[in-house]
Amino acid sequence: MPNLQGYRGPLRELLERSGVDVGDLIRVEKGGRIYEGYLMPRLETADEWHLVLKLRSGYNIGVAYEPSMRVTRLGAAVKPEFRPPPLPEQRSGLPKVSIISTGGTIASRVDYITGGVHAAISSRDLLSIVPELADIALVEADILYSLFSENIEAQHWSGMARKVAEKIKSGAEGVVITHGTDTMGYSAAALSFALRNLPVPVIFVGSQRSSDRPSSDAATNLIGAVTAAAYAPFAEVVVAMHETTSDTSIALHRGTKVRKCHTSSRYAFRSVNARPIARVVKGRVEMIAEDYRPRGDGELELQDRFDERVALIKFHPGFNPSLIEWLVDEGYRGIILEGTGLGHVSSKCYGPLRRAVKEGLIVGMTSQCLWGRVNMNVYTTGRELQQIGVEPLGDMLPETALVKLMWALGVSSSREEALELMRRNIAGEYSDRTLYEEVRP
Amino acid sequence: MPNLQGYRGPLRELLERSGVDVGDLIRVEKGGRIYEGYLMPRLETADEWHLVLKLRSGYNIGVAYEPSMRVTRLGAAVKPEFRPPPLPEQRSGLPKVSIISTGGTIASRVDYITGGVHAAISSRDLLSIVPELADIALVEADILYSLFSENIEAQHWSGMARKVAEKIKSGAEGVVITHGTDTMGYSAAALSFALRNLPVPVIFVGSQRSSDRPSSDAATNLIGAVTAAAYAPFAEVVVAMHETTSDTSIALHRGTKVRKCHTSSRYAFRSVNARPIARVVKGRVEMIAEDYRPRGDGELELQDRFDERVALIKFHPGFNPSLIEWLVDEGYRGIILEGTGLGHVSSKCYGPLRRAVKEGLIVGMTSQCLWGRVNMNVYTTGRELQQIGVEPLGDMLPETALVKLMWALGVSSSREEALELMRRNIAGEYSDRTLYEEVRP
Repeated sequence: MPNLQGYRGPLRELLERSGVDVGDLIRVEKGGRIYEGYLMPRLETADEWHLVLKLRSGYNIGVAYEPSMRVTRLGAAVKPEFRPPPLPEQRSGLPKVSIISTGGTIASRVDYITGGVHAAISSRDLLSIVPELADIALVEADILYSLFSENIEAQHWSGMARKVAEKIKSGAEGVVITHGTDTMGYSAAALSFALRNLPVPVIFVGSQRSSDRPSSDAATNLIGAVTAAAYAPFAEVVVAMHETTSDTSIALHRGTKVRKCHTSSRYAFRSVNARPIARVVKGRVEMIAEDYRPRGDGELELQDRFDERVALIKFHPGFNPSLIEWLVDEGYRGIILEGTGLGHVSSKCYGPLRRAVKEGLIVGMTSQCLWGRVNMNVYTTGRELQQIGVEPLGDMLPETALVKLMWALGVSSSREEALELMRRNIAGEYSDRTLYEEVRP
Repeated sequence: MPNLQGYRGPLRELLERSGVDVGDLIRVEKGGRIYEGYLMPRLETADEWHLVLKLRSGYNIGVAYEPSMRVTRLGAAVKPEFRPPPLPEQRSGLPKVSIISTGGTIASRVDYITGGVHAAISSRDLLSIVPELADIALVEADILYSLFSENIEAQHWSGMARKVAEKIKSGAEGVVITHGTDTMGYSAAALSFALRNLPVPVIFVGSQRSSDRPSSDAATNLIGAVTAAAYAPFAEVVVAMHETTSDTSIALHRGTKVRKCHTSSRYAFRSVNARPIARVVKGRVEMIAEDYRPRGDGELELQDRFDERVALIKFHPGFNPSLIEWLVDEGYRGIILEGTGLGHVSSKCYGPLRRAVKEGLIVGMTSQCLWGRVNMNVYTTGRELQQIGVEPLGDMLPETALVKLMWALGVSSSREEALELMRRNIAGEYSDRTLYEEVRP
């Protein structure tokens, strides 16, 4: 039976008649035009009217089916060099690393006709795409979710935390979580808080370009992540992504300080108000931070409850203070304000904020500047907001503050306890003042 | 009568008895300790129990009153060199520049005891603080507002636009608007849209450190702004602020592309997805952009109506889609979403967004990444959101998109007309694709 993965209907019949397989070098003649390239597989969900060719230039094109079309086989499929995942017995000297897949571009492939990207391939498939991993660690892979990361919610953070705990219990010396990049920063912050007394590194990794595009960062990021999981001296939750345009360095950003700061570039992730904790260069982990939590033998403590009744509100001119009233009426337990500058909102918000605090909500202040730190002692507005009971959150990122407040409310039995947690530096979410002028966009 | 500005009660009586004036070099003896420095004035709103000394080191300290305290005059007040603002007749060869003050740190002074900053001094006072201005332009100054910029609203944008029009009509060859830095980016965007067919430059300027602190950027920024207003070849709305830590270069950022990206640093303002349009170095305007609107003789057209029924909503995990329903119920006419990555929100938002569009709201998509551009053709989520009617807004900043939608709804007579304005590049809010990889945090 020919290998014509994903092809159906009349187009599949034509390809069968022409005696070609996926991977073969073929010529397609149609309406006086000639196309040559390697026949690519299609997704099951793709339409049945296009064949996809990888041109010699490396680009992929779709050619629409026509009954008069002619297909000729020019050469056999060049089998990609494939090294099957090693068996545990074979490489028992390497550290055990568990890869948990949650979805996203790193675990997807492109449908060349629509241009869309589908979350599709399994985490184990990554091993065949990136055979280098077998030389780095004894890799074991699981699919936990298959989600676009914009659909990830607090329940998934809890699920990830529990899966990490399970893997550590069964001997993983490092854990990698593949994740869509859109909300990877939020999830990394969530696990930074949920995994207390962590004994090994937990490395989030994603890719900005899917693995079948020539410019993909999937393989280099994954190699960096597995290297960090296996060999990093720290036991913290980090994000592993390209540090620059080049493939030579993968930055490891602390989960509470990282933010996606570009929609499409491969080095979109940035540590904000902090430097990356380390980087992976030439297969080695180079530490940058001097203060980090070292690997240890302690018992992991799971604190995986999050309360989603927390809102992140960005203040702006024309902001409607009734929105705060609405949140109180809806039963919210916390609000993170993304204020202006050093931590301000308009004086029209004072009334609703006073009510929110009075009704027991925790209201925290961060800055929409993102870089720098909230300081609510400089201007009258800041002091008035503090008198109302708004809590300044230093240099914590708004996104991290949101996740932390969901966590603090989830794991506490009182407002006071949650507030105390918000003030304490739990997972590097507050950083050293000396950096503020230096680390900026 | 002695000059003891701001001193009251027993402390004032002590100072009067000691025969000292504000500005004198004095010695204070109290509880065995000695302090020497220049006596500083107090604000009327300050407490009456502290005298403020400027030490020889340049720092200011507050010394609390005690009945046993002794004050001795060591030397006379050194009068600060003061050059009165030039009369128009005197320097008629220089370009006419109008300075419009709206408040903020650049027009404030610090109360050293509480550490607070009060919006206080008049715009005309700036001329005595920065006498260099008189050599650059024929400066005329007006106080329009005295507001912390977190309290600035759309009505103030309209007021600023009308004041600029008035000044241009009466012959100003450039206009400077002093403004609190917190929301200066929003106001600069607002005037970029409101001032159509602008014939001269309009330069927003603020300061991150108040003018009586040694590290103040007030004077250098103001000199840069007045230089740009007088001599820049472009007729656009820009923000003038420090380009780096050094005082040597003032960047001029296009009003639609600028964002405050640090809470406290002097070079907090950044052009996002664009380079600054120009910079002021050594008293000269150096152009960076090649595409700009040149000065001209045309008639300024005021389009100064803004509709505040527009919300800026930042999506996040745990986001409550009912918030969108609430906005529709409240009679909002537009929503700017700050989505994740290339322009996504969770699929739970689809229903409420469908309703919003159906009820006539304009819903625009921007990215919380800030750098890069929304692309809603890559992933299924983006395509589905477009089918619902969500409008992708390219590389427009979320803040600029908010202001532009307020403006588009304010000046249009139909949803279609407003949508057409949103899609058109009016004031450089959409920029050239080639920059996306290059210009990033």
